[in-house]
Amino acid sequence: MRISMLAERTGVPVATLKYYLREGLLPPGAATARTQAQYDETHVERVRLVRALTESASLSLAAVRQVLAALDNPPSSWHELLGAAQHALLLDEDRRANGAPSPRPAPDGEPDQWVRRATRLARSRGWHCDEDDALVVRLADQLRAADTAGVVFTDDLLDAYARGCETIAAADVASVPEGAAAAMRQVVVGTLLADPLILTMRRLAQQQESAKAAARRTTGPSAPSRSRSAPA
Amino acid sequence: MRISMLAERTGVPVATLKYYLREGLLPPGAATARTQAQYDETHVERVRLVRALTESASLSLAAVRQVLAALDNPPSSWHELLGAAQHALLLDEDRRANGAPSPRPAPDGEPDQWVRRATRLARSRGWHCDEDDALVVRLADQLRAADTAGVVFTDDLLDAYARGCETIAAADVASVPEGAAAAMRQVVVGTLLADPLILTMRRLAQQQESAKAAARRTTGPSAPSRSRSAPA
Repeated sequence: MRISMLAERTGVPVATLKYYLREGLLPPGAATARTQAQYDETHVERVRLVRALTESASLSLAAVRQVLAALDNPPSSWHELLGAAQHALLLDEDRRANGAPSPRPAPDGEPDQWVRRATRLARSRGWHCDEDDALVVRLADQLRAADTAGVVFTDDLLDAYARGCETIAAADVASVPEGAAAAMRQVVVGTLLADPLILTMRRLAQQQESAKAAARRTTGPSAPSRSRSAPA
Repeated sequence: MRISMLAERTGVPVATLKYYLREGLLPPGAATARTQAQYDETHVERVRLVRALTESASLSLAAVRQVLAALDNPPSSWHELLGAAQHALLLDEDRRANGAPSPRPAPDGEPDQWVRRATRLARSRGWHCDEDDALVVRLADQLRAADTAGVVFTDDLLDAYARGCETIAAADVASVPEGAAAAMRQVVVGTLLADPLILTMRRLAQQQESAKAAARRTTGPSAPSRSRSAPA
């Protein structure tokens, strides 16, 4: 198909497609004349992925390039492919969050108390991670920020957060489709779009749990029992 | 204590304390001379709350006023107090997210498909809510945005998110301290500061679940079983 049809199929204007071509985000079509090229279904899929990454997920061009590079030279395993997608996401999130790299462990290599706590927390759930893992460092930064604000997260509370996240993440991973491009799209865009949704659900669930707790306080222990046990 | 001591105790500069006083965020002290007033421990606690709300939680002045009004005229129940704190939070989040009110149900009162889906989802977990609940409307907006971006959240996936959020919210509610001011602070500031922390944990858990899924694929069903069952 010509570029005008590619634009029609994807809903992306021709000018934007030409920008994708110039930036190397879209491989060139097969030249059929000096100023014409033919595009195929792989181009349609690629354009949709690039648009989802740049528009819905608001990834930077650098992060989009990382995702596409992983797709064009796929790692040997599905897990590594997801890792590449997640890595592109992480870089962009850190850039947006603070515009600067997170504080790293002290120069003498001794991780600070927050990095140690984040690592201990992750390992207590059986999560394999190192103290210099980018996500562990981020978690440590967030614990430090809460402490500065005078908010205490107890070990029990953090363990409950981790259990809730395991339920969420297991479903995330189970929902990833088979094809490499579709998987990348789901991991990057799906993770980002589900973030605010999960936070909304947390607030809805807080309302319910708070109402349940209030009912328990009002009616006392002899009230008809509405089970308090943590949801499976 | 004098205002200089209040500044020392709270770490908030005198100029900021005077601003709090002018804006009515801090009740006046007991006048001891034409230009002097005495402050007590209730002022210390109030200053810490206001600072946490404005700085750590970045709430608007309007939202801080809502929180303080609920504190000064406490609703009859603990649950309603939490509701007031959550409501202040919601207003600010909506303002920051889009600067405009969310789309409401169509004028004929018929909720759109996303509102219906959000309501159905909440009710399927036994959560009591109405279709015009601000959180349900927000959830509907987020589902609509994902659909526009071509990301499909299946009912199973959303149900898993809701279960994860129940685990998280039950721990949130259990962690709320007894005193009204401390409770407000924990709900508003703790909820906001835990949000990014929970999203980081989701990514850490995704890594683990992805590694487990990869191991299952590589080693096949006869490998030493590493239980796949959802975390309790």
